[in-house]
Amino acid sequence: MSRNRSVILAARPRGQPAPGDFRVVSTPRPTIADGEFLLRNHYISLDAGFRNWMNEGSGDSVLPAMALGAPVMGLTLGEVVESRHADYVPGNLVMARLAWQEYSVANGHDFISRLPDQPPCPLSYYLGVLGDTGLSAYFGLTEIAQPRAGETVLISAAGGAVGSIAGQIAKRFGAHTVGIAGGPEKCARLVSELGYTAAVDHRLGSEFAAALRKACPNGIDVYFDNVGGALLEVVLNQINAGARIVLCGAVASYGAQQPLPGPSNLFQLVTKQATMHGFLTHTRVDRYDAARATLVEWIERGEIVPIEYRLDGIDNVGRAFCDLFAGRNFGKTVVKLTDR
Amino acid sequence: MSRNRSVILAARPRGQPAPGDFRVVSTPRPTIADGEFLLRNHYISLDAGFRNWMNEGSGDSVLPAMALGAPVMGLTLGEVVESRHADYVPGNLVMARLAWQEYSVANGHDFISRLPDQPPCPLSYYLGVLGDTGLSAYFGLTEIAQPRAGETVLISAAGGAVGSIAGQIAKRFGAHTVGIAGGPEKCARLVSELGYTAAVDHRLGSEFAAALRKACPNGIDVYFDNVGGALLEVVLNQINAGARIVLCGAVASYGAQQPLPGPSNLFQLVTKQATMHGFLTHTRVDRYDAARATLVEWIERGEIVPIEYRLDGIDNVGRAFCDLFAGRNFGKTVVKLTDR
Repeated sequence: MSRNRSVILAARPRGQPAPGDFRVVSTPRPTIADGEFLLRNHYISLDAGFRNWMNEGSGDSVLPAMALGAPVMGLTLGEVVESRHADYVPGNLVMARLAWQEYSVANGHDFISRLPDQPPCPLSYYLGVLGDTGLSAYFGLTEIAQPRAGETVLISAAGGAVGSIAGQIAKRFGAHTVGIAGGPEKCARLVSELGYTAAVDHRLGSEFAAALRKACPNGIDVYFDNVGGALLEVVLNQINAGARIVLCGAVASYGAQQPLPGPSNLFQLVTKQATMHGFLTHTRVDRYDAARATLVEWIERGEIVPIEYRLDGIDNVGRAFCDLFAGRNFGKTVVKLTDR
Repeated sequence: MSRNRSVILAARPRGQPAPGDFRVVSTPRPTIADGEFLLRNHYISLDAGFRNWMNEGSGDSVLPAMALGAPVMGLTLGEVVESRHADYVPGNLVMARLAWQEYSVANGHDFISRLPDQPPCPLSYYLGVLGDTGLSAYFGLTEIAQPRAGETVLISAAGGAVGSIAGQIAKRFGAHTVGIAGGPEKCARLVSELGYTAAVDHRLGSEFAAALRKACPNGIDVYFDNVGGALLEVVLNQINAGARIVLCGAVASYGAQQPLPGPSNLFQLVTKQATMHGFLTHTRVDRYDAARATLVEWIERGEIVPIEYRLDGIDNVGRAFCDLFAGRNFGKTVVKLTDR
């Protein structure tokens, strides 16, 4: 009898998730009822935001807290292999908010978006550069920050799933891009692989402010903030008149988990006549297709290079998730489950 | 020989200014040299922002810290009574950043703006509703917040120089206006004199959040923040999707004096897709005349009623300034020095 392997929540993480919080279990492959279809998952996307739903009592009416012992909820990219649903046939590719499993049963209401049956680029791009994270970078820069040539665009978590795309898009606009990341190795990769003008290591502690000033000699015109928290206070002291600060969706996720003290210098927004914009990507779903088409064009021209941190196999999904929090990833973190 | 009375900085205030920090001295009336003119000051404007320059080591290249024993710098409205300056003749009315004095010498470079010789409204309006504070309310609402009919506009320091005008402008837009002030008496005046839909007393402490929710049953669409600090955190938890938070110039002034911890829930900006705008009024100087004409029209129609907290005579200038910090003022605080 065919089996299905799933990653279950073995323990609720305390602070950062640890490998022992997750366990792979094998169960019979599920069968489908009328109106359902079976997905074989090619990729699992690892996204820090899902950490929140691992807490007891977290979640809301739309997304309840994850249950202990149940498969971990996440973002999946799968292919229909069996269908008793009128709208889906084997071969269809879908992204869904399902679980960390090899096979999942879906009914079309699982926050699904459909991919073309013959995608113009590697499948995993739909979880990264063409997914929520890449689209966050795209909309945050093209619709909100709108950097001008010669401006300085600072990006936190600059090598992450959002930041790695945001940095390249900002560069396309002719901006000086400065990335913040943890550790000298990542900082070097920001410049060599992602084309950042300069990189600043947030682990510098008390020397961070001076290093930032050196990296941004003309001040900061745009801050694309993917992390929230303490860096914002330092950044606010170095913004230029008319600066735009973009708070990306990810901040909300972290924030919900453990609120951090806010910056004590918000008055800088006044003296610099700056604006701070919070935004969510999913409210722009009507522009996803157009945005993806543009991003594919930029990728084909080599102006945007998607970077992935990829592990293989269901046994590595928990580890990939932990790597994300330990800062071991660079680019979009995915786990590949099949040969496709 | 003619005399001139001035208010000098007798002591640097610790925290809130006290009457003993100021002293009236009498000196000979100054004489003017070529290129100068003598102003008789009709009004002194009291503005909290000037408190910062009373601190030792405060100030910058444009505005140095005030000197101990010297006349206190402030905003004045005076009439030219003698002139050896080509552009000014007796009878001209000017606003200037000069000192708390009956007579001041000016040379036209003292941050001066000229008033019409026959103003269409009481002189003191140029320090309030038609001055920096009224214009801050005007630009903050008409250019930044742009409230729509039926939206809820929350205003802090709602009975102050900026807030008292902002509340009335927002009401003109058809918004539900909710004011925050200190104490039941002021809260009552917000509703009875300024037309606020509701008022909330910030002295309620731990009950403030619940009182705010009751006063804003449909959530908050616009927050016009004149004070900065702790209230913002409570407000952020009650904003609606697409909310606009306007940080008015005054916040910068207070902030420079004693930075307050920032809100720990800035992620609310993300989940609500809200924006926070810092702004300064003086960068819009090219629109002052048009804005004043509009405000005068609204005043003449009775849609905006300027409220003043007015004391009389140079002896009361220090007290008026202290009243501002003790929250004894309602409306724009001015001291009238002459019969004009």
